[in-house]
Amino acid sequence: MAVYTDVSDEELEAFIRSYAVGALTSFKGIAEGVENSNYLVHTESGRYILTLYEKRVSREDLPYFLALMEHLAARGITCPLPVQDREGRTLKELAGRPAALITFLEGLWVRRPGIEHCARLGDALARFHLAGRDFPLTRANSLSLPGWRTLFAAIGSGADKVAPGLANVIEKELRHLEGNWPGDLPGGVIHADLFPDNVFFLGDRVSGLIDFYFACNDMFAYDVTVCLNAWCFETDGSFNVTKARALLAAYEAARPLTKAELDWLPALARGAALRFLLTRTYDLINTDANALVKTKDPNEYLRKLRFHQRVKSTEEYGLKER
Amino acid sequence: MAVYTDVSDEELEAFIRSYAVGALTSFKGIAEGVENSNYLVHTESGRYILTLYEKRVSREDLPYFLALMEHLAARGITCPLPVQDREGRTLKELAGRPAALITFLEGLWVRRPGIEHCARLGDALARFHLAGRDFPLTRANSLSLPGWRTLFAAIGSGADKVAPGLANVIEKELRHLEGNWPGDLPGGVIHADLFPDNVFFLGDRVSGLIDFYFACNDMFAYDVTVCLNAWCFETDGSFNVTKARALLAAYEAARPLTKAELDWLPALARGAALRFLLTRTYDLINTDANALVKTKDPNEYLRKLRFHQRVKSTEEYGLKER
Repeated sequence: MAVYTDVSDEELEAFIRSYAVGALTSFKGIAEGVENSNYLVHTESGRYILTLYEKRVSREDLPYFLALMEHLAARGITCPLPVQDREGRTLKELAGRPAALITFLEGLWVRRPGIEHCARLGDALARFHLAGRDFPLTRANSLSLPGWRTLFAAIGSGADKVAPGLANVIEKELRHLEGNWPGDLPGGVIHADLFPDNVFFLGDRVSGLIDFYFACNDMFAYDVTVCLNAWCFETDGSFNVTKARALLAAYEAARPLTKAELDWLPALARGAALRFLLTRTYDLINTDANALVKTKDPNEYLRKLRFHQRVKSTEEYGLKER
Repeated sequence: MAVYTDVSDEELEAFIRSYAVGALTSFKGIAEGVENSNYLVHTESGRYILTLYEKRVSREDLPYFLALMEHLAARGITCPLPVQDREGRTLKELAGRPAALITFLEGLWVRRPGIEHCARLGDALARFHLAGRDFPLTRANSLSLPGWRTLFAAIGSGADKVAPGLANVIEKELRHLEGNWPGDLPGGVIHADLFPDNVFFLGDRVSGLIDFYFACNDMFAYDVTVCLNAWCFETDGSFNVTKARALLAAYEAARPLTKAELDWLPALARGAALRFLLTRTYDLINTDANALVKTKDPNEYLRKLRFHQRVKSTEEYGLKER
């Protein structure tokens, strides 16, 4: 939930006039997303999302994200599309922030994903991975193993304020992963944050993917484990192996996982859990109490990490032995 | 800015299905309004606002508010209209809260109102007052003089945490107003909260009024002073007499103020300033630091109160002597 930047009447009108979208008829801040300020904009020609990129998104990365959306849309992955202004630009400035007007995507995100949703997500993720294979730009994943070490250094003993002994858990896990992390799995563009609120459905059908602002080049199977963590645990903390099986089977129907990818899944899942444990811990420690952001619970990801630490083989994710 | 209540997928779909509005195609929390949870809903038939009434709005008052919107709309005041479900009901329940689906109103609220906006507001306010004259329901203003005393008792010495000496300022002002408050000015339905974010414009034209959840029966001239306070002060705290003159002249073109109303304006303006000083002080003291609400600055209204305390005659609001 976030609207960080106030936009004045004059600035907003001049901004909208720079596009061939007709006059503004409505402008409302959206209480979703934590990284940027998002507004739902109605003009005479339709609906758009206006995004102001806040400081956590690096300005140099924006061309990658915007070009990726155009690339994916051209390959049949439904996603928001940056609108070009009258001079052909998509990355602009508003209220002192980088800004883009993007097309509005119909659909609803699912608050409580069921088995069928997990299957649809698995299919959409695989097709996203395939569609990104010939995307020419690259962006390193700043939130992969070396980045986690850096983030942990910034958190330090503050972790123990979130959960007693957490700093020690993180240190041990980091050391484990630093010695047990794959180096050469198939990779390409990954979404890296494909949580339920970034996947829109219309009925049972995926109507589109949104929020590409963590997208980067990394291992496909890591992206799969981000989704296993985000979609296949129940609110009571239990792992729903039926949902995992549905997700993985649908993924594999479009893009089969290699033997090496399968073998590394438990380690990748630990890493994916650690990544969100770290960022949520960091956010909880560093969020001003007055900020209009609902911080997410790090302990949810500590529980997920502990689940994966106990996993002995990939079969525990619902896959048959091969 | 507020979305307080989470709605599950199943509840939401069942709720929307109870109306003849077609299938849901989008559902987004809106980061505006502090009293209720508001969602922008798109269905196959159009755009709607779904409001979940949070605890500050009393359930018994909702029929008054919803009927008022229907009454005003029938008299040409553009405002959101509660949608009837398939059984003819407008006040319903969702996620354990009273809820209503209302029509979407086009327009934008003005961040920095100019003179012309103040004039249009004055005209809209007068026409609102006239349109409400034959509204059959009544609702007492719980935030008028006796209510302020109650609110102050709940705040107590906590006021001094907001500004040193504030409790004493409020106590003295309350005593002054208790001895200097009009008893028999013209009245009827007032909006009581007609701030810029509750008045939508399309271009220079008022496209509608929203947020009737403080509406009640009270003196019209008190409503005028709420607007003088909300629209005619600059961000540096100065009173813009040109804006006040424009607001009052446009109001009077539709509904002339009586001599008694004019004489009482300074006292009413003090009361209107005290009302928001009190509620903002109360909110600041009582808002959980984790709540996703931007508390508003009480000191803004302390400065406005001080301005009106120094006013010697109604001419200082830009009106000619009569």
